Amino acid sequence: MRETDPSSFSGLSRRAWLKRTALAAGGTLASGSLLAGAAPLPVPESSKKLGAPILSPEYGQPAPQESDVVRRPTGLTPTQYSSWSFTPLQDLHGIVTPNGLFFERHHGGVPDIARDQHRLAVHGLVRQPLLFSMDDLVRFPSVSRFHFLECSGNGSAEWAAPTGKTAQFTHGLLSCCEWTGVPLATVLEEAGIRPEAKWLLAEGADAASMTRSIPIEKALDDALLAYAQNGERLRPEQGYPVRLLLPGFEGNMNVKWLRRLKLGDRPFHSREETSKYTDLMADGTAREFSFVMEAKSVITHPSGGQRIDRGFCEISGLAWSGRGRITRVYVSTDGGKSWRQAALQEPVIPKCLSRFRVAWSWDGAPAILQSRAVDETGYVQPSRRELIAVRGMNSYYHNNSIQSWLVAGSGEVSNVHV
Amino acid sequence: MRETDPSSFSGLSRRAWLKRTALAAGGTLASGSLLAGAAPLPVPESSKKLGAPILSPEYGQPAPQESDVVRRPTGLTPTQYSSWSFTPLQDLHGIVTPNGLFFERHHGGVPDIARDQHRLAVHGLVRQPLLFSMDDLVRFPSVSRFHFLECSGNGSAEWAAPTGKTAQFTHGLLSCCEWTGVPLATVLEEAGIRPEAKWLLAEGADAASMTRSIPIEKALDDALLAYAQNGERLRPEQGYPVRLLLPGFEGNMNVKWLRRLKLGDRPFHSREETSKYTDLMADGTAREFSFVMEAKSVITHPSGGQRIDRGFCEISGLAWSGRGRITRVYVSTDGGKSWRQAALQEPVIPKCLSRFRVAWSWDGAPAILQSRAVDETGYVQPSRRELIAVRGMNSYYHNNSIQSWLVAGSGEVSNVHV
Repeated sequence: MRETDPSSFSGLSRRAWLKRTALAAGGTLASGSLLAGAAPLPVPESSKKLGAPILSPEYGQPAPQESDVVRRPTGLTPTQYSSWSFTPLQDLHGIVTPNGLFFERHHGGVPDIARDQHRLAVHGLVRQPLLFSMDDLVRFPSVSRFHFLECSGNGSAEWAAPTGKTAQFTHGLLSCCEWTGVPLATVLEEAGIRPEAKWLLAEGADAASMTRSIPIEKALDDALLAYAQNGERLRPEQGYPVRLLLPGFEGNMNVKWLRRLKLGDRPFHSREETSKYTDLMADGTAREFSFVMEAKSVITHPSGGQRIDRGFCEISGLAWSGRGRITRVYVSTDGGKSWRQAALQEPVIPKCLSRFRVAWSWDGAPAILQSRAVDETGYVQPSRRELIAVRGMNSYYHNNSIQSWLVAGSGEVSNVHV
Repeated sequence: MRETDPSSFSGLSRRAWLKRTALAAGGTLASGSLLAGAAPLPVPESSKKLGAPILSPEYGQPAPQESDVVRRPTGLTPTQYSSWSFTPLQDLHGIVTPNGLFFERHHGGVPDIARDQHRLAVHGLVRQPLLFSMDDLVRFPSVSRFHFLECSGNGSAEWAAPTGKTAQFTHGLLSCCEWTGVPLATVLEEAGIRPEAKWLLAEGADAASMTRSIPIEKALDDALLAYAQNGERLRPEQGYPVRLLLPGFEGNMNVKWLRRLKLGDRPFHSREETSKYTDLMADGTAREFSFVMEAKSVITHPSGGQRIDRGFCEISGLAWSGRGRITRVYVSTDGGKSWRQAALQEPVIPKCLSRFRVAWSWDGAPAILQSRAVDETGYVQPSRRELIAVRGMNSYYHNNSIQSWLVAGSGEVSNVHV
């Protein structure tokens, strides 16, 4: 893989950088139209009349003109009670997902839980079993951290063929926000962890009684009992009033509507980690407990369903790793023959989305865009072929292979496999 | 001012830290109730029936039980067209403000602007006057940054007497989000800045034609033409489709619904910077162009209108500075006689809210809680007396003095001056 220097925005003036980029490909700068100097500027209609008043009291809503920026459900499930909906990644900027667009995955619908009545039990191999109300939990010392959450099934429909038309459907079981909660370690230490405790069973208060086994090392490392997202209390579909947050672990383990944690000396082998959420290999065996979401990335602009014009085009996307910080992202515009290092937007936070950008000038010839992420462990995001060589074609979850977008001569962008 | 070491959560185990804190004040730990070991846990009602299905398509909404967490308008203006609404800081966690709770300040209502029709003109002392559509602007290289925005009138009603009952009304003209946009410098360089250009006039497309003069140094430093907040496009009340963002500068200069930037060789002395948004001093002269929001902080928990119980209580709040990073926050529980250094939540970002926390155990005696922020320039947030000594009693804007909350023997918290 050939590499060039990162296209840093800070190393040279933006104008010089724009010019260099545009001229290198014979393109034009992104720019406005010339304004006739003599005539006065027209006064816009919106300046001629009063706007809308402040409403009292109010929780604000998105601009009506952005009404197509919504979560969209899958068409693959027979019911909307055990199903999922996707975040519109192609329409988003930066790293924060607004709470109203945070992807969903439910196994028995969204329960309606009275905050005052909800209890979290901590029992099993503890010195004193304890029951916590929400008032108990929020009284503990809290932390706030930015973390992504990704469904292990994100990209599963892409394994055999390019299926999703947009980044929303190829990668949109992925969102990111600022979580606030109690370190799980604090609460476990209140109950007193017995030395033989090695695993926890986490169970939700939903109709599916969603149940997963969590290694004690993770519980004592960076796990949170999260009760807020992006400043406000959890949304109902994100586990109101409290969920488990296991940074970097597959989405379904971050049990929502959390009602109990039972400590044991071995994994509990629940339905969701035996018949479900395992990875079937080519030889018929299955990977179980494949917790960590490995390094992955996707270009969100330009991406499937969009159309670009010749000349300057900023390539921008998201990279993330369940093992820590993203250290580098490479972008190819020729289907992987050559690679340029992208700029990473600060702050780069462990187990969080990172926004990458690279300047490009499109000359009108068909092009294949790819991104490849590297994390702080040195792990390199695999190509689809590299992934299949290891995992075979029976697998479904944990597809972290490189995404390819074809820019046709018309400027239209579509999902392809190369 | 006496100081003690920061109460770092990482320096000792959380349990040891909790115990030390609680025992030092003779209090008890925050904890749940003992759970009888023998009886099976009751199955919650929410596990006995299906929850709500995924809606199609959908922009999600807050939990119905959190319906009191809303923006609230002031009662001080005769109309809701030129008025403001406050962010409920006392109910929020972390540093991100959800877009639906971002404070508002309008001078002529919220205009309804067609994104496709909106244009931004750059004219005056430029080599080529230019007109930009939104498609032109989003095509430029973009950046994303977390910044607070604060109305210069935040806390103005607190100058003479403790007025606001809650942190929402004392400090809630303050919000923070991740902004995405084009560096203003990029766009100005496209037009070509003439050497004699020293100021810009920024004008909004609202009924007030909100107009302010911006120094060219700020425009070329970190100013953005922002079109997205917390991932999604700007909300209408935040300037859809594009606003000026001047990190650290008073809110009204961050002109919303931005329609033109005119470069000139001197300030334009608009109404909003001569008769309004100036600071009347004791001698009858006025401070003009007081752009920067100086270092400030507020304890949001516990705060006015809340009630605490004896024993462990985490004191938590927000600190910010228009000049850069917050470096230290001190907390007093005895009305300023002694101070402890608070822990700052990472990442600490320049010109952004920082969340601080300190462990406390309340012994039931009346207490006065205060916080004092220090920024990277060494500036120390003043007490109310220190502020008045310099600024007198005629002033209205730029009240960044220390807030005092009285915890009564009943545990009820109220706004006081000391």
